Amino acid sequence: MLSFVNDYCENAHEKILTRLLDGARVKNPGYGEDEICRSAAEKIRLACKCPDAQVRFLVGGTQTNQLVIDTCTEAYEGVIACSSGHVNVHEAGAIEFTGHKVLTLPEHDGKIDAGELEVLIKTFYADGNYEHMVFPGIVYISHPTEIGTLYTKKELTDLSRICREYDIPLFLDGARLAYALACADMGLSDVTLEDIAKLCDVFYIGGTKCGALFGEAVVFTHGNMPKRFVTRIKQHGALLAKGWLLGVMFDTLFTDGLYYELGHNAIERAIELRAALREKGYQLLFDTPTNQIMVVLENSRKAELAKKVNFSFWENIDENHTAIRFCTSWATAKEDVKKLIEIL
Amino acid sequence: MLSFVNDYCENAHEKILTRLLDGARVKNPGYGEDEICRSAAEKIRLACKCPDAQVRFLVGGTQTNQLVIDTCTEAYEGVIACSSGHVNVHEAGAIEFTGHKVLTLPEHDGKIDAGELEVLIKTFYADGNYEHMVFPGIVYISHPTEIGTLYTKKELTDLSRICREYDIPLFLDGARLAYALACADMGLSDVTLEDIAKLCDVFYIGGTKCGALFGEAVVFTHGNMPKRFVTRIKQHGALLAKGWLLGVMFDTLFTDGLYYELGHNAIERAIELRAALREKGYQLLFDTPTNQIMVVLENSRKAELAKKVNFSFWENIDENHTAIRFCTSWATAKEDVKKLIEIL
Amino acid sequence: MLSFVNDYCENAHEKILTRLLDGARVKNPGYGEDEICRSAAEKIRLACKCPDAQVRFLVGGTQTNQLVIDTCTEAYEGVIACSSGHVNVHEAGAIEFTGHKVLTLPEHDGKIDAGELEVLIKTFYADGNYEHMVFPGIVYISHPTEIGTLYTKKELTDLSRICREYDIPLFLDGARLAYALACADMGLSDVTLEDIAKLCDVFYIGGTKCGALFGEAVVFTHGNMPKRFVTRIKQHGALLAKGWLLGVMFDTLFTDGLYYELGHNAIERAIELRAALREKGYQLLFDTPTNQIMVVLENSRKAELAKKVNFSFWENIDENHTAIRFCTSWATAKEDVKKLIEIL
Amino acid sequence: MLSFVNDYCENAHEKILTRLLDGARVKNPGYGEDEICRSAAEKIRLACKCPDAQVRFLVGGTQTNQLVIDTCTEAYEGVIACSSGHVNVHEAGAIEFTGHKVLTLPEHDGKIDAGELEVLIKTFYADGNYEHMVFPGIVYISHPTEIGTLYTKKELTDLSRICREYDIPLFLDGARLAYALACADMGLSDVTLEDIAKLCDVFYIGGTKCGALFGEAVVFTHGNMPKRFVTRIKQHGALLAKGWLLGVMFDTLFTDGLYYELGHNAIERAIELRAALREKGYQLLFDTPTNQIMVVLENSRKAELAKKVNFSFWENIDENHTAIRFCTSWATAKEDVKKLIEIL
Repeated sequence: MLSFVNDYCENAHEKILTRLLDGARVKNPGYGEDEICRSAAEKIRLACKCPDAQVRFLVGGTQTNQLVIDTCTEAYEGVIACSSGHVNVHEAGAIEFTGHKVLTLPEHDGKIDAGELEVLIKTFYADGNYEHMVFPGIVYISHPTEIGTLYTKKELTDLSRICREYDIPLFLDGARLAYALACADMGLSDVTLEDIAKLCDVFYIGGTKCGALFGEAVVFTHGNMPKRFVTRIKQHGALLAKGWLLGVMFDTLFTDGLYYELGHNAIERAIELRAALREKGYQLLFDTPTNQIMVVLENSRKAELAKKVNFSFWENIDENHTAIRFCTSWATAKEDVKKLIEIL
Repeated sequence: MLSFVNDYCENAHEKILTRLLDGARVKNPGYGEDEICRSAAEKIRLACKCPDAQVRFLVGGTQTNQLVIDTCTEAYEGVIACSSGHVNVHEAGAIEFTGHKVLTLPEHDGKIDAGELEVLIKTFYADGNYEHMVFPGIVYISHPTEIGTLYTKKELTDLSRICREYDIPLFLDGARLAYALACADMGLSDVTLEDIAKLCDVFYIGGTKCGALFGEAVVFTHGNMPKRFVTRIKQHGALLAKGWLLGVMFDTLFTDGLYYELGHNAIERAIELRAALREKGYQLLFDTPTNQIMVVLENSRKAELAKKVNFSFWENIDENHTAIRFCTSWATAKEDVKKLIEIL
Repeated sequence: MLSFVNDYCENAHEKILTRLLDGARVKNPGYGEDEICRSAAEKIRLACKCPDAQVRFLVGGTQTNQLVIDTCTEAYEGVIACSSGHVNVHEAGAIEFTGHKVLTLPEHDGKIDAGELEVLIKTFYADGNYEHMVFPGIVYISHPTEIGTLYTKKELTDLSRICREYDIPLFLDGARLAYALACADMGLSDVTLEDIAKLCDVFYIGGTKCGALFGEAVVFTHGNMPKRFVTRIKQHGALLAKGWLLGVMFDTLFTDGLYYELGHNAIERAIELRAALREKGYQLLFDTPTNQIMVVLENSRKAELAKKVNFSFWENIDENHTAIRFCTSWATAKEDVKKLIEIL
Repeated sequence: MLSFVNDYCENAHEKILTRLLDGARVKNPGYGEDEICRSAAEKIRLACKCPDAQVRFLVGGTQTNQLVIDTCTEAYEGVIACSSGHVNVHEAGAIEFTGHKVLTLPEHDGKIDAGELEVLIKTFYADGNYEHMVFPGIVYISHPTEIGTLYTKKELTDLSRICREYDIPLFLDGARLAYALACADMGLSDVTLEDIAKLCDVFYIGGTKCGALFGEAVVFTHGNMPKRFVTRIKQHGALLAKGWLLGVMFDTLFTDGLYYELGHNAIERAIELRAALREKGYQLLFDTPTNQIMVVLENSRKAELAKKVNFSFWENIDENHTAIRFCTSWATAKEDVKKLIEIL
């Protein structure tokens, strides 16, 4: 059966797997203190044009969000996030588990608004009772967002400006960053990796959903890695013994532009699929350029389609309609898109 | 200067203070295991007409909210509260500090709506990803609410029904309960203490804002006190060594109807003040029967008033107007209301 | 029945209670931002001869230990304490509840040894794996200790020197400090309040066990109060609404030397009792000058005594012997000691 | 250069890596809800002869210890562990990070003693103040221990009996379990996997140090998996998106006895090396049958050896002597042991 269910259902790009097999009996130092991690970090610094960046590799997205937010805030601070943000909705309370509140801003196409951010911060400090409230400690955004939209360079610059004005770090969740970067390459976005490294204080480059077995590369852009970060990682139960495996992922992804190449594949497939859907008159839920395509279907049509292709449930629209998601990925075959278009 | 700033700016009713002085050199067992606490608990059980209730005394409101929510939920559960709820806004993240998320519902006159509560719970379980989300674990309401409104018996019954249908405890914050109960006595509310004990699973009777030096009496209504509750209190740093002091507070408040009498005073004074404000054409921000009166003033008028009377800032309305709060209390003198009315 | 059960079984000194009654209807600002607290803090600064000290009042001992240790350490740091320390044994895990490990040192007459402290710290940093271990973040001592012993000035100076050498704050739990200070006054100890303020980074002056209704005065000795300390107190559920009550306690205790006077009473009574016990051939478990006297009794003798006087269980010695504790206090009457001696 | 530095410095057994490559483009359901995980779990149930066991796969050891201890205890409970236990020393406070205290027992050849365990539990409940103390909530042991020793069947049975008598779960950390099981196969231990499944309430089968890329298989032996365990894993940031990768590890390790075969290799190599060391007169620090060999060396000899072979530092013995560790593993080549013996 065809599957467009998500972008993390296949092992990893063959270059990574082959490299793991080839290096099967090489002996490496543990806990990320190895040459492969150092090489991967250096390649990321070059790709970001950010020579002072501190790079550290972690296993998964929720783990990374939890660690970054917990270690970049004081105990009395919370994280400002979009109401639809992953940290607010789909991480089982991982942020609160470490003692921090999620302070929400309204969602606009999956994004937060710089003006509303400023109002939140100003209102906080204008409140006579602010000492009895959770301080704004970090701003969390995702790019692409949970619904596949992208921040523009202007939007990101505005957020960055306000964050710096109030000395609050800006943290970008790039679990699907390859797809955002491919959009930039293809003229569908004006935000480059270099822009992100300049405008954010900390961000991560997603591996799990972009061709690696697993792994997220956290980048602290200006010497702001939290004190004793390795100990904090260990304390969170998040320190991978065979840390070089993460090095292998990112060293491979950042060799010969593989990370970009994988992003391109997903976006090209998404463009093909989106065009076909529009041509056939399907209603798309969001206007996004990235690899997630949400489509509103009559329930009967949905049931019929489900016999031939795997997709994911997005949300109930009304009694008779449901929004579903088709997801392309680094691994999506051109022929599979063709087959799906035929079915549609 | 006149003061209507809040309801917790005076020590305590003289009956309490005298009793403390009279008992100065009596020796008592520590940690709440004494006769005075037992007597106070029994009086509260009688007042609630809830013979099986388990009663335990704590020092303050945020402490009580934190302890009850933390001990009545599993680690993977959060608390459902009104967006304007004290636990969501003014407790410096005390709930998240113990690992629990606050799941918010919209505010309607300071209250949550039973229908919206049911939708939240149903939507949660209908979501295919609910295992990645924070489970609804307890419902928190305040009565009177933060803006001074009261739930009706029907509203409370509806909330209770839904909570019981989904096996989620209903927790009522009664930091200002004396004022709600006085309203019931005076025909301004149809919710009695007995109703609360029947409809809620856990609630507390506020002492700090209702005539005690400090203290909140937590009532578990049907044998549902969390296991090892004393140890949990100690672990939270909340176990008062001289626990009988809390017993003295509540034993006195629940002798000869003092708690009701103190509530009556605040409500009678509020009625006088509210009538005068309306007569003089002031705009009241909320339509509430209890002891908090929010008034919208021109900023110049506010500045002038501030020279003669203490009140508290409520919120900015627009550039030229501010909402302020006058608060009556168990201790408010009838002459002070008269003087305030003359000034207005 | 006679009682020597503990030093926190009576309300408070009459001067405090009278003052509460006299000020019953005075209106005060909340949360410790009042004149009485300011006055009390100033008196404490004077008593400590430490003009820059920052003073803040909290309700209880475990609460204070939890707050100080949590706010004075980084998340990756633990607290070094004596294996018999209150924070390690009798606080129901309040320290671990906030995420910090207790790193124990052996107990020598209830005290830790400066040399062993240095070895612990040096061994930690010499361990190649120290990044996978809990960092030493603060040193906790109690004075008097849990068994009633006192640090000498030399011992305290040595601990302080090592702490400063390694930039680790020294925290002194003074829950029973009045009794230590009385010993200094009476030539039984060479450690004064001034010494403590000089040698420690943070300490507290106990009220609960030394004549107040409740309350501990935390003193940060050199501008080292943690950032946003009020918010942290609120977040811990530990911020007393009527904060001035704590001010009343300590303003009274530090007026006309009352705190010292109360300490003297306990120590004088303890001296009388200890002398009698020795004379009558009782075996004392520890050689201490303060207000706790542990006595080893045959179990049959213990049962007999228990009919006439309340004391507390200390520990089982062997099948036939038990150690019990007689505790004198700020409130112990000279005639009660006489009566007890007659019984012994 | 030769390396005997640890047992987690190589990627994984080739069968695992090949399988990852072969399945590169197979699409799998996420989060461990896949056929490979189900197959692996079934193979483990068979190997344990425990048909009702619930099996769940996690990434690393500290993560697993943290999750199991946190989810199998109440908030007021701690974990009883050996003073030298991994959870007490080398997990950067991961246990305390989730609010639980580690209650230590003395170390006897890396193990705890059943009699001392019983005394600890009995003493706890005999203490009049136990409500102010951390309750014993779970017992943690490691097998092999941190120093490579093994529990005997009698020792494990005694621990299990006491745990069941007091209704406290027994948790066995099997990070190096393959090496213990190989010892049983080879007559060097009388504890089989079946015994462990019968005597423990929860344990894990280590993958990271026994031939997998990473992964630990947690086994709840009698329907005692904690409620909402998946949500708790997510909340800890520990849920691997591509959960089937863990399935691949353990399905491969438990096919055709690979897990045992890998264990055998390490133990055979250790036997060869240990015999040579003894023959050459080296002093072994511990008498253990497993894959870790601690040797006491003069510092000059150590420096010389370090030029030719990688080993790990164990501990300082005195000014002139150091204990080092040689570690064999699933991957150690027979020729490497020969070469090492020649060097020694």
